[in-house]
Amino acid sequence: MFGPGSFSARIAGMNATTKTNPGRFFEDFRVGETLTHATPRTLTEGDRALYMSLYPTRFALGSSSAFAAACGLDRYPLEDLIGFHVAFGKTVPDVSLNAVANLGYADCRFLSPVYPGDTITTESTVIGLKENSNGKTGIVYVRSDAADANGRPVLTWARWVMVRKNDIDAPAPDAVIPDLPSVVAPEELPVPEGLNFAAYDTTLSGERYTLGDYEIGERINHVDGVTITDAEHMMATRLWQNTAKVHFNVQARPDGKRLIYGGHIISLARALSFNGLANAPLIAAINGGSHTAPCFAGDTVYAWSEVLDTADMGNGIGAIRLRLVAVKDAEPVDFPLRGDDGKYADGVLLDLDYWALMPA
Amino acid sequence: MFGPGSFSARIAGMNATTKTNPGRFFEDFRVGETLTHATPRTLTEGDRALYMSLYPTRFALGSSSAFAAACGLDRYPLEDLIGFHVAFGKTVPDVSLNAVANLGYADCRFLSPVYPGDTITTESTVIGLKENSNGKTGIVYVRSDAADANGRPVLTWARWVMVRKNDIDAPAPDAVIPDLPSVVAPEELPVPEGLNFAAYDTTLSGERYTLGDYEIGERINHVDGVTITDAEHMMATRLWQNTAKVHFNVQARPDGKRLIYGGHIISLARALSFNGLANAPLIAAINGGSHTAPCFAGDTVYAWSEVLDTADMGNGIGAIRLRLVAVKDAEPVDFPLRGDDGKYADGVLLDLDYWALMPA
Amino acid sequence: MFGPGSFSARIAGMNATTKTNPGRFFEDFRVGETLTHATPRTLTEGDRALYMSLYPTRFALGSSSAFAAACGLDRYPLEDLIGFHVAFGKTVPDVSLNAVANLGYADCRFLSPVYPGDTITTESTVIGLKENSNGKTGIVYVRSDAADANGRPVLTWARWVMVRKNDIDAPAPDAVIPDLPSVVAPEELPVPEGLNFAAYDTTLSGERYTLGDYEIGERINHVDGVTITDAEHMMATRLWQNTAKVHFNVQARPDGKRLIYGGHIISLARALSFNGLANAPLIAAINGGSHTAPCFAGDTVYAWSEVLDTADMGNGIGAIRLRLVAVKDAEPVDFPLRGDDGKYADGVLLDLDYWALMPA
Repeated sequence: MFGPGSFSARIAGMNATTKTNPGRFFEDFRVGETLTHATPRTLTEGDRALYMSLYPTRFALGSSSAFAAACGLDRYPLEDLIGFHVAFGKTVPDVSLNAVANLGYADCRFLSPVYPGDTITTESTVIGLKENSNGKTGIVYVRSDAADANGRPVLTWARWVMVRKNDIDAPAPDAVIPDLPSVVAPEELPVPEGLNFAAYDTTLSGERYTLGDYEIGERINHVDGVTITDAEHMMATRLWQNTAKVHFNVQARPDGKRLIYGGHIISLARALSFNGLANAPLIAAINGGSHTAPCFAGDTVYAWSEVLDTADMGNGIGAIRLRLVAVKDAEPVDFPLRGDDGKYADGVLLDLDYWALMPA
Repeated sequence: MFGPGSFSARIAGMNATTKTNPGRFFEDFRVGETLTHATPRTLTEGDRALYMSLYPTRFALGSSSAFAAACGLDRYPLEDLIGFHVAFGKTVPDVSLNAVANLGYADCRFLSPVYPGDTITTESTVIGLKENSNGKTGIVYVRSDAADANGRPVLTWARWVMVRKNDIDAPAPDAVIPDLPSVVAPEELPVPEGLNFAAYDTTLSGERYTLGDYEIGERINHVDGVTITDAEHMMATRLWQNTAKVHFNVQARPDGKRLIYGGHIISLARALSFNGLANAPLIAAINGGSHTAPCFAGDTVYAWSEVLDTADMGNGIGAIRLRLVAVKDAEPVDFPLRGDDGKYADGVLLDLDYWALMPA
Repeated sequence: MFGPGSFSARIAGMNATTKTNPGRFFEDFRVGETLTHATPRTLTEGDRALYMSLYPTRFALGSSSAFAAACGLDRYPLEDLIGFHVAFGKTVPDVSLNAVANLGYADCRFLSPVYPGDTITTESTVIGLKENSNGKTGIVYVRSDAADANGRPVLTWARWVMVRKNDIDAPAPDAVIPDLPSVVAPEELPVPEGLNFAAYDTTLSGERYTLGDYEIGERINHVDGVTITDAEHMMATRLWQNTAKVHFNVQARPDGKRLIYGGHIISLARALSFNGLANAPLIAAINGGSHTAPCFAGDTVYAWSEVLDTADMGNGIGAIRLRLVAVKDAEPVDFPLRGDDGKYADGVLLDLDYWALMPA
C-alpha cells in the first residue's frame, strides 16, 4: 500500500507503475482544510441534447429557449440535475474513493441555474470528523461548493461518508460533528434572478396543475416505466465523468453485472415525474436522499411522488417539497415505500426529498 | 374513467392521484377547433450530432456548414426529419393518445429548413370528423402546423386517426371529410429560400448522379443494413419527446419486447438511401406512408427506393418523387413490396412516398 | 463487375440499380494523382459531448474551456482523436474499399487542434505503388491531408494498403516506394500556436506528474476496464461517418457479431490512459500502430502504456513518446504484448506508438 504523498506505485522488477490516484484515507483529512477537485467541466448544448436522449424529460423550461425567456431568464438553463451530477462527481476522487459507505447528504441548494458555456469547478471543505469505535474507519463530513469560471456559485451541499483508515495506528482526531438541517427552510431556497411566472403558459408546459392544485400528503403515480440498458446508463455516467469501475466493467463484481450509478436513477425518476409535476421545472434544493437498492440493466423503473410541503415564495412563485420514490418492476399503484418492519420495501430504489419551484 | 375536464384521478382512500393526461376521446373533438400542443422544443447542434450518431447519414448539406453555404443557405440546416419527428411527436398527447389506429397522413410539406436555435411549436386544427357505424369509434382528421418562435412556418401536414369514444352515448357529429391530395403537386413543393445548386460539388457529396441520371421506374438497392439495438432506438425516440410506453417498457407488451417507433425506421431507411441518392439531401414533401410491420431490437434493416416521378423546379433545382421501402433481415436484391395477394410481403416494414430536391 | 467509370450497376430485367460506389482497384491508382474525398464534416460541441459520453476521457484541456484558455489557446479544442477519426474515415471510400489489408500508417502529425465549427475535408495523393508478385493485388501508398474550410491544415498522414486488382490483365505500374519515417522526429512535432503550460494547474488536471516524472522504459497500468456494448461502438463509428457493414450488420459476418471499429479501441484506450497520463492532453503525432485482434461487444478493454522517449520542445513544453496497448478481459498487471514467438499475445487488441505534449 502507498499513501497519497508517494510518487507512484512501483511493482518490483517490472519497471512498472500505476500512477493511479490512491484516494485519501480517514487519517488524511483535517477539519477546515479545503480540497479543489479535478476536472473542470464546460457544459454545452451537447449535454442538453444527450440528457434529453437519455431521460424522458419534457419540462418546458429546459426544452425551449423561448419558454425560458418567457419565464424571465435571459439565458436558457440546463436541467438542474446536469449541474448536480457534474458538480457532485468531481468530489469522488478526493473524498470517497476509499469510502465504505455513503451515509447521507443534506442542505443541497441550487444557487443558480447552470447554462451552456458554464465551466463547473468544485471545492470541498472538511467540516467534521469522527473516528468510529472500531478504530478502522471514520466519518468525514464535507461542505462542497460548485462555481462557474467567473466564481458565480451554482451549487452547495453537505455530505458525509464513512472512510477507511490506511494506517490503523493513526491517532483519532477530535470529534467534530456539524449541525446540518434535515430540511432546507423555505426562506433559504434560492430563486433564480429574474424568474417570473406571470406569463407561464400551462398549455405549452403540458399540464394545468399549479401549486394550489397540490395538497400536502397527496401521492402521485407517474405511471410510465422505462427498462434500463447498459449502453444508456454508461453514457450518462460518463457524461458526469464518473468512472467508478462497478458501473462499466462486468469483471468488477462477482455477479458480472454493471451496477447503475445512483444519479441515473435520480434523473430517470425525476424525468418520469413530469407526468403529474410538469409545472415544477426547477429544483431549488435537495434535503436528503437514499439509494435503497441496486439497479441493473433489464430492470424497469417507475416513480411516484408525495407532496410533503408547500411554500409561497412571493412574486407568484411557489415551492413544493416532494418525496420522489423510484421503484422497479411494477407500476407503483399502491405507492410502495416501507414494509411493516420499517425497512424499505422490495423494489424500492430511491427515496429522495427535494424542493422544486412552480407557479403559485 | 374521467374526462379531460376533471381535475385528476383520485384513488379511493389512498390520497392518491395520477394527474396524468387522459387524452381526448372522439366526442371531445369539434371541427374547426385549434389545439396548441405542449412542449416547445429548441433544436441545437447537439441534436444534429446525436442524429449523426444514431443514423448512418452522410448527406453533405446536413454534414457541412461550408457545403450548405455553397448551396446558397445562409445558415446550416438540420436534416429535415429532425424537425419532422419533433413537430409530429407534439401532436400525440392531444390527438392520438386514445387512437385505435393511425390511418394515414398526407400533404406533408417542409416549408422551411429547421436550423439550430429554432424552437418548434405545433398547433392542430380539426378538419374532419366521422363516427364509425359501430358507434364506438370515429375518425378524426387534423391539419397540423409547426412554426418556430418567430412564427415562421416550418412544416404542415394532415393526418387522420381512429379514436375511441369515452361516452358511447355521445351523439355522432355531422360527418365532415376533408379533401386531401394523394400526392403533393410539384408546383406545391416548397424550395428553401436562396437554394442554389450552381456550385454543388458532386465530389464532396460522394456521388455523381443528379436528376437526369434517374429514370422513372428505376429501383435502387441501398445495399447496407443495420442491426437495431434497444438503446439506440430509445435514445432517438426520447429526442423527439415521444414517451409512448411501448417503446421503452418491456412490461408494456405481452411479448416483453420494446416496439420500435416508426419514425426510427423512417430515419434509418432515409439514411441508408444515401447510398444511391446522395444528391437528394432535402425532403420537400411526404405524400403518405405506411408502417407495415413491427420492428424490434435484433432486426437488421435494409432499404430500397423506386423513382416514382421527377420534376424540374427551375433554377437548376430538380425534384424526385421516391418510394422508400424498409425491409428486414435480407438485402432487398429483388425489391420486395407486396405479394400476389396484394398484401405487403413478409419483412416489409415501411412504404413511404416522398419528394426530395436535388440538382437538376 | 463494373469499374468506377461506369454509370451504375443494372440488374437484368428488374429495372434495378445499386448506384453504389464500387471503390477503386489497384489499377485505378496513378502516382501523383490527388483524390478529394467526400463528405465534408462540420464538428460541433455536440461531437464533444458525445465523445465524453462514449469514452471515459477526463483530460482537462478538452473538458474545460477555461482550462484551455489558461493554456494559451484562444478557442476550446476538441480532443485530437475526434479530428483524426473524421479525417481518416473520409479516405476509406476512395482508397480502401477494395483493400485486402491495411498494412500500416506513418508520419501522422496533428498540425492544429480542431475546434467546434471547423469543417474538415480530406484529400489524398498517391505517393507510391507496387504490384505484388501474384499479379492480383498491389500496395497503394497515399499521403492524406485534412484541412478546415479556410484551408488551415489540421492533420497529415501516410498510409499504405493492399488493394485488389479488378482487371487481372492490367499492366503493373513502375514500382514507387516512398520513404516514410518510422518515428516522427521531435523537431517535426507540431505545437499548437499559443500553447503555454506556465499556468498549467495540476490540481485541476487531476494528477501531479509532468514530463520529469516519467522514465524511459517505465510501464504504466491504467487499471480501469470498460465492457463494450454494441450500441456504443455503433454510435461512435457513425459519428465518424464510417459505414463499413461489418460494424453495423450482424448478417455481414459468419459469426453474427459486429466487429468493433479499430478507432473505437484507440479512443477507449487513450481515454483509459488518463489514469497515469492526465497531463498529456494533446496528441502531437502518431508514429504507427497495429490492430492486432478483433474486438466484440461483451469484451472488457483495459490499457497500459510504456514510455518510449521524451523530448524538450522548449518554452516549458515537453513531448512524451508512448506505446499504448489495449488488451481485453484481464487487467494488464504484467503488461502483455508479445509471446516468446514474437507474435502478439492473446488478448492484445492494439499496439499504438504516438507522441503527446505535456508540461515539461
